[in-house]
Amino acid sequence: MKHLLLSAALAASLILPAYGAEPAPIPSPGEIAAAAPASNWVAIAPSDLLVMDLAPDAKGKPRRVVIQLMPAPFSQGWIGNIRKLAAAHWWDGTSVNRVQDNYVAQWGDATEKKALPAGLATVPENEYVVGRAGAAAWDAVRAMQNSAPIIPDPYASSQALWGWPVGRGKDGERWPVHCYGAVGVGRNMSPDTGSGAELYAVIGHAPRHLDRNIAVVGRVISGIEHLSSLPRGTGALGFYEDAAERVAITAIRLATELPAADQPRFEYLSTESDSFARYADARQNRRDPFFIKPAGGADICNIPVPVRLVAAK
Amino acid sequence: MKHLLLSAALAASLILPAYGAEPAPIPSPGEIAAAAPASNWVAIAPSDLLVMDLAPDAKGKPRRVVIQLMPAPFSQGWIGNIRKLAAAHWWDGTSVNRVQDNYVAQWGDATEKKALPAGLATVPENEYVVGRAGAAAWDAVRAMQNSAPIIPDPYASSQALWGWPVGRGKDGERWPVHCYGAVGVGRNMSPDTGSGAELYAVIGHAPRHLDRNIAVVGRVISGIEHLSSLPRGTGALGFYEDAAERVAITAIRLATELPAADQPRFEYLSTESDSFARYADARQNRRDPFFIKPAGGADICNIPVPVRLVAAK
Repeated sequence: MKHLLLSAALAASLILPAYGAEPAPIPSPGEIAAAAPASNWVAIAPSDLLVMDLAPDAKGKPRRVVIQLMPAPFSQGWIGNIRKLAAAHWWDGTSVNRVQDNYVAQWGDATEKKALPAGLATVPENEYVVGRAGAAAWDAVRAMQNSAPIIPDPYASSQALWGWPVGRGKDGERWPVHCYGAVGVGRNMSPDTGSGAELYAVIGHAPRHLDRNIAVVGRVISGIEHLSSLPRGTGALGFYEDAAERVAITAIRLATELPAADQPRFEYLSTESDSFARYADARQNRRDPFFIKPAGGADICNIPVPVRLVAAK
Repeated sequence: MKHLLLSAALAASLILPAYGAEPAPIPSPGEIAAAAPASNWVAIAPSDLLVMDLAPDAKGKPRRVVIQLMPAPFSQGWIGNIRKLAAAHWWDGTSVNRVQDNYVAQWGDATEKKALPAGLATVPENEYVVGRAGAAAWDAVRAMQNSAPIIPDPYASSQALWGWPVGRGKDGERWPVHCYGAVGVGRNMSPDTGSGAELYAVIGHAPRHLDRNIAVVGRVISGIEHLSSLPRGTGALGFYEDAAERVAITAIRLATELPAADQPRFEYLSTESDSFARYADARQNRRDPFFIKPAGGADICNIPVPVRLVAAK
């Protein structure tokens, strides 16, 4: 007896294709994505990748976390700041200071005294969403309007659009969604919106109540385990009580600043592709061999956009 | 600048009550639960608590995980087996063998050769749900029928009932839900339903596609961090590739088998209480000071039933 509890993505590897008289098993979501033609995959520009190197772990193993920044029209004020902070090497020598179970891992300057680079924008709260107020952004949102199936949602409703999970208000507003791995901007009480110097990644059930209340600027596409498996902080809000518990950040760089051979190369499955439509349907109605009762639906965070590492040429 | 990203449960501790002329801040969900009268809290019987002690961590700290078993009418066939396995001390010397990021931590006998105790039931698949087929259980479900608000849900719909998140089918069926911390029974391919010897806890976004496909038997109410912060396995499905990576289980006991002074005492907030109704409303519409835009809804797994440790007398 293997007593396996099969997972979504990995069940694929255990099922052999059937070429004989037997009916082929129904493919899992992971198999559908893996079989998608090259034309359905979209390269992620190195200029949209933030590479965070933590100090090696206790066994000396490197810990690299790769974050994909969101595209326009979302959160571009904060993302501009983040590009400046990375270019200034501002995070080098800072640390992961807070790990709260089923919530977030948060990093930045624990001393709260390190001077920020010049020229960071103060972004207004209305940029948490894209709506009718921003004309150019609104044009982009209107173009999205009918391009993807709408997922019912206790929060509002949502869609997978342009490679990202997107919330959808009744009045046409759109906003980025806090799914597992989402990266957001820590802030103080309103009207503060945060600069982008203090960031967190979601390491638990999607805290959707944060949507439209905090800026989402990207998502971890590789190495989330280096954040999600850190010891939980025992202080209020999961902050580490002892400075020695903090996890040092060696460097955070835009991938374009790394040597060409060291630049990570990733692709995502186009949310506008037929393959994605079939993948999303399969996530909502699992019919691959392990499952006996399809769910009949899925929340947007249970339809994660497939991302894959591209082998170097 | 504190750059705090406030959390649901802990924001409470940072807000001082206002007794003066200023309007009192609107309470957070955690504050509502903390203020609930003693009559709204329900003691959890020690006979429904499973206490798992992992080997101490690298610094010698104890690691105790406490699991609350589900009440009738749900999953009682497997829970009967689990009681027998605990009474036989069957898990002592077994280990956590699999930790898959954003999914599950799973434990049991890695050798797959340890003989099971006599008298374990083979539970049929139709016990994943409670429906019209089981007459006595169905009477209990009918009694639940109108006792709690229905939460809209992309899966079906759901309710918080009898202290637990419960899925709700169009035909009246009810089933336990895979939220963060849920404990389920590993199995092989259908028609196997698992014995209960191989268990897992959810350590990521609620994998609701597993509902009605695997037995949910309980939830971790204390010490989930000892599972969720373990290193992720690098083998298929997150299994540890090297036996030395496994985390030893010292003992798993029903709390009733522990010395009285060592029996953990917990209470949950009655889901049928007014306090819970206000807590659930506040989880769906955050109006406490950190929030600027209430979500207007929440999925059932974002309305976790409050559980508290009761200090020993």
